[in-house]
Amino acid sequence: MGVVMKVYLPGSRPDLRVPVREIELEDSPAAYGKAKNAPVQVYDTSGPYTDPSYASDVNQGLPALRSSWIAERGLGTQLSWARRGVITPEMEFVAIREGCSPEFVREEIARGRAILPANRQHPELEPMIIGRNFLVKINGNIGNSEVVSSVEEEVEKMVWAIRWGADTIMDLSTGHRIHETREAIMRNCPVPVGTVPLYQALEKVYGRAEDLTWEVFRDTLVEQAEQGVDYFTLHAGVRLAHIPLTAKRVTGIVSRGGSIMAKWCLANRQENFIYTHFDEICDLMAEYDISFSLGDGLRPGCIADANDRAQFAELETLGELTRRAWDKDCQVMIEGPGHVPLHKIQENMDLQLKLCDEAPFYTLGPLTTDIAPGYDHITSAIGAALIGWYGTAMLCYVTPKEHLGLPNRQDVKDGIIAYKIAAHAADLAKGHPGAQVRDDALSKARFEFRWNDQFNLSLDPETARKFHDDTLPQEGAKKAHFCSMCGPHFCSMRISREVREFANQPGVQGVLESSSS
Amino acid sequence: MGVVMKVYLPGSRPDLRVPVREIELEDSPAAYGKAKNAPVQVYDTSGPYTDPSYASDVNQGLPALRSSWIAERGLGTQLSWARRGVITPEMEFVAIREGCSPEFVREEIARGRAILPANRQHPELEPMIIGRNFLVKINGNIGNSEVVSSVEEEVEKMVWAIRWGADTIMDLSTGHRIHETREAIMRNCPVPVGTVPLYQALEKVYGRAEDLTWEVFRDTLVEQAEQGVDYFTLHAGVRLAHIPLTAKRVTGIVSRGGSIMAKWCLANRQENFIYTHFDEICDLMAEYDISFSLGDGLRPGCIADANDRAQFAELETLGELTRRAWDKDCQVMIEGPGHVPLHKIQENMDLQLKLCDEAPFYTLGPLTTDIAPGYDHITSAIGAALIGWYGTAMLCYVTPKEHLGLPNRQDVKDGIIAYKIAAHAADLAKGHPGAQVRDDALSKARFEFRWNDQFNLSLDPETARKFHDDTLPQEGAKKAHFCSMCGPHFCSMRISREVREFANQPGVQGVLESSSS
Repeated sequence: MGVVMKVYLPGSRPDLRVPVREIELEDSPAAYGKAKNAPVQVYDTSGPYTDPSYASDVNQGLPALRSSWIAERGLGTQLSWARRGVITPEMEFVAIREGCSPEFVREEIARGRAILPANRQHPELEPMIIGRNFLVKINGNIGNSEVVSSVEEEVEKMVWAIRWGADTIMDLSTGHRIHETREAIMRNCPVPVGTVPLYQALEKVYGRAEDLTWEVFRDTLVEQAEQGVDYFTLHAGVRLAHIPLTAKRVTGIVSRGGSIMAKWCLANRQENFIYTHFDEICDLMAEYDISFSLGDGLRPGCIADANDRAQFAELETLGELTRRAWDKDCQVMIEGPGHVPLHKIQENMDLQLKLCDEAPFYTLGPLTTDIAPGYDHITSAIGAALIGWYGTAMLCYVTPKEHLGLPNRQDVKDGIIAYKIAAHAADLAKGHPGAQVRDDALSKARFEFRWNDQFNLSLDPETARKFHDDTLPQEGAKKAHFCSMCGPHFCSMRISREVREFANQPGVQGVLESSSS
Repeated sequence: MGVVMKVYLPGSRPDLRVPVREIELEDSPAAYGKAKNAPVQVYDTSGPYTDPSYASDVNQGLPALRSSWIAERGLGTQLSWARRGVITPEMEFVAIREGCSPEFVREEIARGRAILPANRQHPELEPMIIGRNFLVKINGNIGNSEVVSSVEEEVEKMVWAIRWGADTIMDLSTGHRIHETREAIMRNCPVPVGTVPLYQALEKVYGRAEDLTWEVFRDTLVEQAEQGVDYFTLHAGVRLAHIPLTAKRVTGIVSRGGSIMAKWCLANRQENFIYTHFDEICDLMAEYDISFSLGDGLRPGCIADANDRAQFAELETLGELTRRAWDKDCQVMIEGPGHVPLHKIQENMDLQLKLCDEAPFYTLGPLTTDIAPGYDHITSAIGAALIGWYGTAMLCYVTPKEHLGLPNRQDVKDGIIAYKIAAHAADLAKGHPGAQVRDDALSKARFEFRWNDQFNLSLDPETARKFHDDTLPQEGAKKAHFCSMCGPHFCSMRISREVREFANQPGVQGVLESSSS
């Protein structure tokens, strides 16, 4: 039975070790030539939690992996170093993780086509990169609300989400104890953490959007910057002039951040303060190297509202802000929709690349129909796979509870797996080098009835094993050359092997050749 | 609280009544203008089982709805009548169901671009149509195997599958009592039933593929034709000359029918008997008006094998057979893959349309990655949505148990819902008239916090309601203007309404207009 292990790939310095999950495979059975099968290494987001030699202590937090890297070089952003030709340890880490050269990583960051979100106050981070010339990434949202859930549950949800493959986490808490929840997540999270600072700012003014001020907002940014948040969603593109464009929509403004800013603008009859203070915000972001995630506050909330003027007017503003942020050495990605039918997805990607000068796109789904609440991880995985293929760099997951309630543990896992599927389907379609290795290894294992290898290579070995065992629980069935789908007499895989053997018998080759003329 | 009812739309004769599900909606609340909301009618595959006035008796079977239509006109196929300019009651039924003219239905059938599968021995059938200019359809597979399940379970699975929206059912039983299982399904099934007659023929020769004969196979076709099977999957395209093309594949021949025929061809050193006896088969199919579903016995079983020579060589043969079947007034659809990465899907559709002269395509998925056993309803719903948009007429569902075991009740439902999503996403993308009505009604209900309407309009009201109630179980919450996702203070839908109200206040419009210049 194959073994799955966490191993570390060495870098150019002793404190640079890149975690991967290595899946050892069984030899092919005699009927298939008895060959050795090379182990398969897969990208590993799970952090030290899956290292058996690591003793986890949530109160202690994770080891500060990057401390010395950060101390050695002083202030600056990954973009600033990339522009100056410097390959940081973070870039080297990412290059090993992605299987490309450090120089390529540097170039993509310098060009603004990829970001490496890593707040200097988040030294626990294992660096990763978001850009369309790298593996497609996925984000998992967690966060409590006024109605339900606790700090401990949210930390546990984070560990759970990265175990299944979340590349980044957004903490979208809106309820009480928002600061402590985030602090606990930050100190225990090995992947970049994003937030929407507006949610906490709104708590500070007792939920009254019209009472928000730039000062309250700025203080919230500083507070979260100090805690180590790696990227901020900022709804800077919801401009006063865009608001009337949403009035005739079926579902208006569905982004929470977008609706809060729209309300503020109207109530105060003023331009969005995130837009008017954008340069000051850039200075703060650069100081900590926090990446912008320019929010799409006017994203469509239903099929009817997709690709409308409000949405694209905001996108144009986001393009302007991208260039302003780049001028200040800030890293930027752009958030995208939302609800979009299949035939309108490509236009989103094309316009985003054009208007935002190829800054990475980070989309929520998109959901390709509105009629399946309870299954929006599927309605949106369809759109996510497609837009990932077209060029989106990171996909924000949607759970089955979308539109209905807060996700529990199972919902988080279901959302992550659906999005790992979408991201991997996109990687295959983009021809990402190496992406197909895992598919090929799993399919070969399937053909050779190496059941345990098939389980271990899958995105969710526990579920694959359980489903198999539901009908054939005996341990011997893990070696059986059939499964319960067809039973022993009808197994096409087995017949196919017999066809191969038969075709190799003397004389048969002649029949085949004469028939193919 | 809105009501969901089964209603019947009248046709031109008293025995022609087309079932639809009508979803009554609540009025919009005062804050949203108190308007009436028109009821939404949706396509209904569930048969008499969901009619409260119908007393179901499985031993009795369903009423023979089409008996007099069949008796009145005598022998012939829907294609033969369409070609002669005759609009049959079945065509009229379908036109009402699809919301188009009977003449359009007739034209599409006459052209071979659509089929109306309806064996004259299956009078219980509520007619439906499969063609790319109609709503995208889905098929649900059921069937026992030697390892598990009973006749009663299979009938129950069929009723369950059509309740959730399966447009056709394939009975893929391979085990004991194959005849009785099928008989029970036929007499109780209001949607077309497809089979793979080869499975039963193989039972008759004790599972030894090489012992199959044309006579055993022909007798099996007659037996199943008499029972009323509406379409036969026939692996006529697996020709002797194609077999060597599969030898270097990662997963060989994964179609059961394909591997059985390949084994027969090799063992007997002869051309496929389904191919050599094709004209006789056409005569039988025409006699009963059974539609061909030309099987893709050489479909790829993994990403590595997609779009290879074996697959497309077979497709070319299927094109040849399509024209031969049409010459004998037989209706034809073509089965398609399988496992195909996103970027290779379009080529499948384009080639199929070209080689098979626009006969309807009926695809299994395709699965867009191999790495997620346990979640292949999702890996394949992604491919299914895409190929449906490109022009596939019917999508064969894949359940979460694919590759691992036989689907249970929950798996069947999960597969159906995933495929209803894919089919509807494709309908939206194709701009099918009327498809978006349901999305728009649901989104409007969502925006106006008409929770019960949102549930009733969804593909799975039970799950949507349950997910909502998991966090907010009180009945009052069904009227609440927020949900547990954001809590009362952060609800973007509510804020969005406030934005609308605010924008209508005196003076505000001026501010907006001056800011948009």
